[in-house]
Amino acid sequence: MRFRIDIRRKEGLSDPEGLTTLTALQNLGYSAVTDTHFGRTIYLDMDGDDAAAASEEVESMCRRLLANPVIEDFDIEVVG
Amino acid sequence: MRFRIDIRRKEGLSDPEGLTTLTALQNLGYSAVTDTHFGRTIYLDMDGDDAAAASEEVESMCRRLLANPVIEDFDIEVVG
Repeated sequence: MRFRIDIRRKEGLSDPEGLTTLTALQNLGYSAVTDTHFGRTIYLDMDGDDAAAASEEVESMCRRLLANPVIEDFDIEVVG
Repeated sequence: MRFRIDIRRKEGLSDPEGLTTLTALQNLGYSAVTDTHFGRTIYLDMDGDDAAAASEEVESMCRRLLANPVIEDFDIEVVG
């Protein structure tokens, strides 16, 4: 079973990487771009057939290690 | 219009961040995890209504600045 975890900063927190990229894109002439945000994606392959149990385990991994719940939101999705 | 760009290493290339995370998860007791890969996600907000033209522009941004086509694959998706 493969999970995809999308991690991004909570709304309202500054995203310096996104701001720098926005400036760089506009300097390259891409003037239609109005905003840029960065996030991280983690793909996890897991043994087992119980999707609900695995999903709970992935959420626990996010809280304990993969994401920083203070400043980040995450979404978990089964992708295969 | 909002685009989501998923960038990840091409198949077969080593992913040291993923390997380290896999070891850390297994050390924390998550023994069902068999593999871990990292990727980056970039959200771009763009002006304009022509989705096809904007999509081509985003692909050009990826090739010129956002991704490294030598070692990375990317997917572009309209998300809003």
